[in-house]
Parts: sequence; C-alpha cells; structure tokens
Amino acid sequence: MSPKITTELLKQLRQVMKSPKYVQEPVQAYIVPSGDAHQSEYIAPCDCRRAFISGFDGSAGTAIVTEQHAAMWTDGRYFLQAAQQMDNNWTLMKMGLKDTPTQEDWLVSVLPEGSKVGVDPFIIPADQWKRMSKALRSAGHDLVPIKENLIDTIWTDCPQRPCKPLITLDLSYTGVSWRDKIVALRSKMAERKVLWFVVTALDEVAWLFNLRGSDVEYNPVFFAYAVIGMNTIRLFIDGDRMTNPAVREHLQLDSTLEPEFKIQVMPYGSILSELQAVGAGLSPKEKVWLSDKASYALTEAIPKAYRYLTPYTPICIAKAVKNASETEGMRRAHIKDAVALCELFNWLEKEVPKGTVTEIIAADKAEEFRSQQKDFVELSFATISSTGPNGAIIHYKPVPETNRTLSVNEIYLLDSGAQYKDGTTDVTRTMHFGTPSAYEKECFTYVLKGHIAVSAAIFPNGTKGHLLDSFARSALWDCGLDYLHGTGHGVGSFLNVHEGPCGISYKTFADEPLEAGMIVSDEPGYYEDGSFGIRIENVVLVIPAETKYNFKNRGSLTFEPLTLVPIQTKMIDVNLLTQKECNWVNDYHQKCREVIGAELERQGRHEALRWLVQETEPLIRVQ
Amino acid sequence: MSPKITTELLKQLRQVMKSPKYVQEPVQAYIVPSGDAHQSEYIAPCDCRRAFISGFDGSAGTAIVTEQHAAMWTDGRYFLQAAQQMDNNWTLMKMGLKDTPTQEDWLVSVLPEGSKVGVDPFIIPADQWKRMSKALRSAGHDLVPIKENLIDTIWTDCPQRPCKPLITLDLSYTGVSWRDKIVALRSKMAERKVLWFVVTALDEVAWLFNLRGSDVEYNPVFFAYAVIGMNTIRLFIDGDRMTNPAVREHLQLDSTLEPEFKIQVMPYGSILSELQAVGAGLSPKEKVWLSDKASYALTEAIPKAYRYLTPYTPICIAKAVKNASETEGMRRAHIKDAVALCELFNWLEKEVPKGTVTEIIAADKAEEFRSQQKDFVELSFATISSTGPNGAIIHYKPVPETNRTLSVNEIYLLDSGAQYKDGTTDVTRTMHFGTPSAYEKECFTYVLKGHIAVSAAIFPNGTKGHLLDSFARSALWDCGLDYLHGTGHGVGSFLNVHEGPCGISYKTFADEPLEAGMIVSDEPGYYEDGSFGIRIENVVLVIPAETKYNFKNRGSLTFEPLTLVPIQTKMIDVNLLTQKECNWVNDYHQKCREVIGAELERQGRHEALRWLVQETEPLIRVQ
Repeated sequence: MSPKITTELLKQLRQVMKSPKYVQEPVQAYIVPSGDAHQSEYIAPCDCRRAFISGFDGSAGTAIVTEQHAAMWTDGRYFLQAAQQMDNNWTLMKMGLKDTPTQEDWLVSVLPEGSKVGVDPFIIPADQWKRMSKALRSAGHDLVPIKENLIDTIWTDCPQRPCKPLITLDLSYTGVSWRDKIVALRSKMAERKVLWFVVTALDEVAWLFNLRGSDVEYNPVFFAYAVIGMNTIRLFIDGDRMTNPAVREHLQLDSTLEPEFKIQVMPYGSILSELQAVGAGLSPKEKVWLSDKASYALTEAIPKAYRYLTPYTPICIAKAVKNASETEGMRRAHIKDAVALCELFNWLEKEVPKGTVTEIIAADKAEEFRSQQKDFVELSFATISSTGPNGAIIHYKPVPETNRTLSVNEIYLLDSGAQYKDGTTDVTRTMHFGTPSAYEKECFTYVLKGHIAVSAAIFPNGTKGHLLDSFARSALWDCGLDYLHGTGHGVGSFLNVHEGPCGISYKTFADEPLEAGMIVSDEPGYYEDGSFGIRIENVVLVIPAETKYNFKNRGSLTFEPLTLVPIQTKMIDVNLLTQKECNWVNDYHQKCREVIGAELERQGRHEALRWLVQETEPLIRVQ
Repeated sequence: MSPKITTELLKQLRQVMKSPKYVQEPVQAYIVPSGDAHQSEYIAPCDCRRAFISGFDGSAGTAIVTEQHAAMWTDGRYFLQAAQQMDNNWTLMKMGLKDTPTQEDWLVSVLPEGSKVGVDPFIIPADQWKRMSKALRSAGHDLVPIKENLIDTIWTDCPQRPCKPLITLDLSYTGVSWRDKIVALRSKMAERKVLWFVVTALDEVAWLFNLRGSDVEYNPVFFAYAVIGMNTIRLFIDGDRMTNPAVREHLQLDSTLEPEFKIQVMPYGSILSELQAVGAGLSPKEKVWLSDKASYALTEAIPKAYRYLTPYTPICIAKAVKNASETEGMRRAHIKDAVALCELFNWLEKEVPKGTVTEIIAADKAEEFRSQQKDFVELSFATISSTGPNGAIIHYKPVPETNRTLSVNEIYLLDSGAQYKDGTTDVTRTMHFGTPSAYEKECFTYVLKGHIAVSAAIFPNGTKGHLLDSFARSALWDCGLDYLHGTGHGVGSFLNVHEGPCGISYKTFADEPLEAGMIVSDEPGYYEDGSFGIRIENVVLVIPAETKYNFKNRGSLTFEPLTLVPIQTKMIDVNLLTQKECNWVNDYHQKCREVIGAELERQGRHEALRWLVQETEPLIRVQ
C-alpha cells in the first residue's frame, strides 16, 4: 500500500481556505470529519472527503489542515493502516494513547492568535461543534461554519450522490408496521412533551418506514430525512424512488388515510428550509426533538430554546431491541451465513496448501458462497481477509498491493458478514491451515477465554455493556497482553452492522443498558504488529438468564450466540482452559453441529458437512 | 431509630423562603446540599444543614424543599437509614434506581410556571450549579443564589465553626516539603499557562502545606483556603492558629525567605473579596485555575473568560500518588491497625457468647485498642459496628435506639478505621461467632471471590479503576446477587479516608487512571435487607506487576494489600473457591501471620497472637 501524494491537494485546499469566493474571512484551519450529513459511519463515495484529502480510507478519522500542518486523528484499529496510506504531509494522531493531544488542544497549540477554524456545518454533529467551539473560543479562536464544503470545491471528479431504488419490507420481516412505529414514536414524543421529531440518521429513517435502500455500500439505507409531527409525516427524499408502485403501496401514498398517517414527500435538499420554517413557527414551550449528534446545520435551524436534544433518539432505542420476527430473521440469516463459511473453510483447507489462494481470492470466495444463500443482498462491510502480518492491521481490507497468499505457515483472520433480507451478520474466525506455534495457540486461547467470559457472563437487568468489557480482557491482562479496540458493537436487523445505543467497550460512552432482545458482537482479539492478528467474533443476542437468586426479581441477563461457526480447535491450548470454558466450547460446537449440520444436509452440502463434523469434535481436557 | 419530626422546621423554612428579609424575591424551592463551602464529604456540625432540616444524617444526600414537597436524594448505601430517619413530610428519592427522577426533572414536574429555586452559592459546586441552572432555565425556571443560608436563619442553636490547633508534619511523614510542593504546583500552572491556582478543598490545603487539623471529625483537616500565584502564597485561615511557634517555624513565617515562598496569612472570610480583587486585576490571557467542584460563589468571583476549570486539580492528582515516605507510613499504620483488630476479635470471640457485647460496646472496644497504638490520632470515620439486620444498612452507625447485642446466631460486620500520624486505615471484616448457615457462607464466599478478583487483578498501566469494578461482582452475578455501591475509593495518607481522583466503581465518573503508588479500597459486599450484611474490605496499594509479556513495555499493575487482618475462614465455603483463590487466601493469611504476628509478639500481645495463628490456618480444598 503506497501512500497518497497529497502535496498538491493540500496546496489547493489552503488556497480555498483563504479564497473570498468560498469563505467570508480566511480560515487558518479546516476540519474534515469522517461522516456525511447524517453522521453515518459508512458513507457514499461522494462523501469520502477525508479519504480524498488524506489518502486514509478507514471508517473513522478526522483530518485537520492548517496553513502549516495536516493532522489525522484515528483510533487503535487504524494506526497501521493510516500510517501506510498517508504521505509525509500528514501527522498521525493516535487516539487513546496518553500523550496524544485532542483536536482542540492541538489546534490551540499550533494556531496563531485569534484564528478562525472552518468546518462544514452539515458534516459536524452539533455536540462536537459545541465542545470544539467552546474550547477554541476559550483560547481566543473561533469555530466558523463554511457553507460550501471546501473539499468539494477542489474535488474535480467527485462522484454523484447515489439515488438507488428502495426495497419494501413486509410484516414477516419487521414484526411491526411503519404506522405502529409512528404511533409508538408519537407516544414517546408526548411523554417528553415535544411536538416534532427530526429523523436524521439514515438507518433510523429506513427502520421507521420499513424501507431499505442501497445508496451506501454495505448499509441498506437511502439518503432521506424525516420530520414527524403529532399530525404530520414529512419524508425528504430525492429521485423517482417514490414512483415505484410497490413503494407507493407500502407507504399508502395513494390511499385515503387518516391525515396523521398521510406522508408528505419532499425534496431531500429542502430539509433545512423546511426545518427553519418549523422553527420559526414555534410557540413558547413547543419543542423539537433532535439527536445531539444531528448536524450543526439542522440543529441551528431550531432556535435554542425550542430544542430538545438527547444522545439517543427513541427510534435508536426502539430499533436496538429486536422483536420476535426480527430475532427469528437474525437466526435464519446466521444459519445461512454459517453454511457459507463452512463451505469456505472446507474449501480453504483443501486449497491453501496448493499456494494459490490469496486474501482477495478468499474474500471473493466467501462472498460467492454467501451469495448462494436465500435472500442474500450484499456484504455488510468490506471483508477483512488477512494473513500473517496483515492480520495485525485491525480493519485491513486486501488490495492488490498488499494481497498476500494464504499458506500453511501463517495465521489467517477472516472478519466478514452479509446483509440478508432477514438479517445482518458479522463473524470473525482465526484459522491456521498448518501447525500453529505454541505462542500463537497461547494468544488464541487467551482471546477465546475472553470471548467466553463475555458470552457466558450473567449480569443484572439494567447493566450497561461497558461493565462487561474487562471480562474479555482479563485472561490477556494476566499475561501482559491487550487489544486496542472495544469488545462489541450493536448490530442492526438487515440494517447497519454497527449501530447504537449499546455496545461493550472500555470507552465509557453513554451506552444504554442492555436488555433482552438487543444484539451485539463479542469480539476480543490480540494483534502482534508485523506478525499476526487474532480475533474471535460472534454476534450474540441478549436473553434472560436463570440464576439461583435472580437479583431480588430485578432479573438476570446473559447472551446466546447467533453465530454458529466452529472455532478452530487446532488453535486452542486446551490446558489453558478451565473445565467450564472447555464445556462452553464443546456445547457451542455441539449446537453448531446440530443446527448448521441440519441445514448443510438440507442444502445437500455433504463435503462441508463432513468438515463441520470434524471441526466440532469435543475437546478433552487432561486434568 | 425514630424519625425527626420536621413539620415545624419545614414551616419555618417555607416562611423564610418568602421573606424579603432574606430573599430578594420569594423562592418556590430551596436546595440543601450535603456539603460545606469546601465541598467536603465529612462536615463540621455547623455545616450539617441537611441533617438539621430532614433528620437524615448519612454522608451523602441532597434535600429540596418546595412549598408543597420535601424530597431527599441519596444513594443505595443510605436507602434504609434515610427511610428510618425522616418523617412523613419527606419523600425518599432512591438514586441509581431506574425510575427515580433527577433533582432537575423532579423540580420541573412539581414547580409552578416561572419558579425561582434558591441555593447557597457557597455550598453548591459550580459544575452542579451549571447543570441544574441549565435544566431549570430550559423549563422556564431560574436557579438563584441566596446569599444568606436559609437553614442558618432558622437554626437557632447552630454550633460554632470549629477552629482547632494545627499539627505540623515533618519530612519523615510527608516525603516532600511544602516548598517543593509549591514549586511542583507552579510548574503544573506554567504548563497550563495559568497565573493563579485557588485551593478550595480542605484536604488539598492540608496536603499542600504539610499541616493537619481537627476542625472536622474523622478528617484531619482545618478550615482554610489558599490562593497560589506564581510569586505569591496566600493562606486564608482564622483564629490564633498562626501564633503557634511550631506552625510559624514550619511555614517559615518569621524567616527571611525568597518572596515567592513568603506566605501571606489572611482571614478565612476574606477569600471572596480577595478572589474578586484577583479577578478584577486580570489582563486578557491571564487565567485562574479552579476545580470545577469549587463553590459557585468562588467560581463566579473570577470572570468566565479568565477561568480554567478542571475536574481534578494538580494537587488532587499529586496527592493521590503516595511517595515512599507516605507508603511506608501507610504500611506502619496498617500493621498497628491490624494489631488492634486482632485484639478486638480475640476479645469478641470470648465475650460475645456471654451476651453482653452490644454494637456500641464493640465499636468502643475497637477504638480503645486502636488508641493504644503509637501515633493514633482519631478514628477515620464513624465505626460501622452492625449485627444481623443492621448489617444490611450499608453505612449504619450504632446509636442507643438501634443498638443490638452481638450473638452467636448473627453475622457481625465491622467497618472501621483510624487516623495515625503516619497513615489512614479503613478495614471491614464480617464475622460469625457461632455457626454460619450454608446460605451465609455461600454469600460470604461470593463476596470473597469478588474481593480476590480485584485484589489479584493484573491490568495495563493507564487503566481506570472503573474497568475493574465488574471483577468484584462476577461471582455474585453468576448466582443472581449484587450490591448497590462501588467497589473502592481512594484513601488519603493521614488525610481523608475517601479521596479522589481514583476509585473502583460501576459509576463511570471521570476517574484518573490508576498508577503505582495510588491507594484504594477493595470492598465488595452483599446485603440481605432485614437479615444480614457482608463486606470484605482491604486497603490496597497499586504496585507494578510482573507479567509474561508486559503489555509491549506499557507496564503492568496489580494491588498489594496494606490491610493485614485475617478473613474469617469459618465463613468460607472452600468448595466454591478455585485453587487459585484458595492459594490467595492462604498466602494472604501467611503474610498476616508473619507481619502482624511479629508486631503482636513485639508488643507482648500473646493472646491476640494465639488468635491470629489460629485464624490463619491454611484452607484445604478437596478436589
């Protein structure tokens, strides 16, 4: 992977930062956040402005360009990747390390007195704006909104914003109609005494209307906003997507409806002016509910006194708790996904020794097997197919320049998943196709112990996920090992593979308490730079647990793995497992054999079935 | 314990809330926080305003009185105690439970439109003021500072503010002179480009000047403020305490000193006007550093643009990391404390069966044994001596009305500690003087497993304490049990028994990362309302750990118990322990026997020594 040469681009950006054509006053720094106007994690090519200016295309990172400097903040998953993709114009700011300055502190340390710092108000979330603006102001600088995105002004071949057809989801997939979702939302609005709710996150719009799209790769969403009043529904969406009869029927656009369920369709670009009109028409005590992560531009459209901001919207919280139809869909999706992976790993076992399988070929093969499954839509994220040292690049994606050939001498890590119409998957397995070293097995076993510690954890109702993070690390910590990423994230139901408001992380973000029906990943890892990466990831469902004393009727929770793919026993040092952990592995493999075995049989995939049976032989621990 | 009758007092308070003599405009609600003007946890009798108005005298709680209501917010430690001490005029707000409203939400729900909410600006921390003021304002109400404390106006027999003599500590105790502490502080100030630092916390003043006092029971502090400039030192303190020759000598008040070390002594009450003068004389870019927990009154004395507020002051952070002299002092103090407890428990074993020992007698006896030890100053908090159901009242203090007799049929919980000139102790042991039930042993053993899980935890340098909290709960959780308090708090060195900035809690407060030299408590528990309480508490020192891979040279930490008092093996169900846990207990008891045994021998306390030897017999686990 050779770095992108950015000297000329930075020169151009620094010119427009001073050009009266684009800025009222010159700005001494310009911030290029990761996201789009919906604060999406995965973004359309036209929104990849940070990657365009810096070369670094990981999923998280913020670039800041001043007259003298260019700096990139990203987290532990991306330290290696960012270092490889950026040229010497850029300084990498490793977030999470003690000596790394915050963006604000760094700006204050490099800016001349009384500087202006520019940012696109549609791209920066309101909470970030507030924090940064305050910090800059207290040091004598100003954060200023720049209406025209300055990257777009120098990005001559910027791709068009996508506008692809929509998919409608019926009740068998969603469990709840969009009308009932609107009713529930309005009841939450009434509880909080707000009159309007602004839906800004793309997955929230998709979930609310039981629609899916494909405007953004991997995430089945479409560019839209919605503004829900107590008696009105406005959907801001472009293109001819609303002419599709199935969509019109689904949204009942041509039916005679009670007025409060009549959807007004408006152009995507009119959201700001419409919201400003809403804001201007408010009486005292009338409130508008927005996520505090909504863009600064939309937040400012509502006068401060009328804003009701929360870290998580009622849609985000409702969406996280899957109903019976969604849970069953997720189970089905994970069974199909496991079938595809059994096929893949069986194929790899045979092909890798021949020396002809590269990371890209393996990733493509995984996609091929997945695409044979019913209701397959697309991948849920870029497949991380990495062998040897590439495995240590936590969010690695193989490209021709880095593409390594799988061999019997290196560890292979595959983190992959798919969107099926009934659910979203995300699974990581770490395999060795030859004989792993004692050290590799040792590290793998610690990671496995951490995986089991979370998966088998029992905890009281109302526990926040971050309280479980250390369980995943304890076995690694005992030997002086750790990993620089969180342990788990929420997973959508045929929606974004990363979603809030719950997760399992050492970062004490404001996560919502775990409750039965939520779905998260459990994915501890260990990474040895330059050598290998290990990660074991299942998607798990929060379920009620049975405990002896049941927390004085507060109720107990635990996890049920939805992912049912064998964990390579060859990589396990059985003597490092307790009997309880050993039983967990055997029970898990027994379930894989039963559930996935039956599906492999049904699909007539006999060779993969033989592989599954062989890979799920019980471990025996010598006492 | 019968509740305090508050009907008349509340009537009087509601009168002054409307009286033009005290308030410019009537206030519809008045907030009575727990603290004093220094936001101390432990307060002098003259500052116990919340206890005076409500009857509830636990260490944490906020009272709010409106025209119609009186409500008290407190945490899980105090639910039972508060319910017992308050009459029916009061509503108990159980913090930490899901359905309990915040103070702000509750106020908004009960206040008439456009209300004024009053509070003493010296008693409310600036960060709380800000949060509450914002929430009230957004609901159309106003938080207003009431200069005269309204409780004081109705508290006719309010005691005088104490003004007791000071103790000077020499280098053998503190390890660092006050001059060197000032130098270090000024260097931190220079780093942050601030010109002034305001010391508002009593323990920070005491630590900075290597002085101790006894104005507040249990905490060896004295009423004072300090304002440190780059070239000036101002100490705000009352009484004739500065006429003591030892103090004058210690502070070099009569020596010819470099001017930047010359201490100006000023009246305690002049802090506000002096600080206002400092604030008025600032030029742009000149900053004053305050804790964001400093009072609203003092914070407001500095114009907003000149304030530099942080959650923890540099003194708080420096104070938390004990140097070699302090650590050695803490070790000595804990050895003496263990001697006293061995004497006590030996005495209790003989006396309890006679049926003559009450909770108060046991507490007094503990104090008597402690007071026989060298450099004993006072207790470090009110002894929690509780048997049977009283043990479930987490911060119980025996009083004649509740005083129970210890018996061979009930669990006895003793949480106690002392101030010695060389260190502060805090230890909890849970004992049975007869035969514990299987259920009691089961619960005790889970608590012990949690205690060990924290004490033996290994974690990377830079880990925050809250990441360890779940380790203490895991064994309890597995059986559906939990406890409603944090697992540990920072402990001062001959200073406050509770101190920041570190701790071990499920509450994700902004704790500073643990580092070698910090001292915290490890005290999981289990409480069965109406039956018993169990807690096992050691004070532990953060020390470097040896690990196989040492976190890529980031370094490893673990804990060393400073408390060396036997854990009653009679209460342990050995079969619930792993071999590793069993070894931990045996190693711990071996160390108690060696270290405390030697000191008991030296002090000629042969009977207590025999008790110690008997209590530290190794556990044997049947596989």
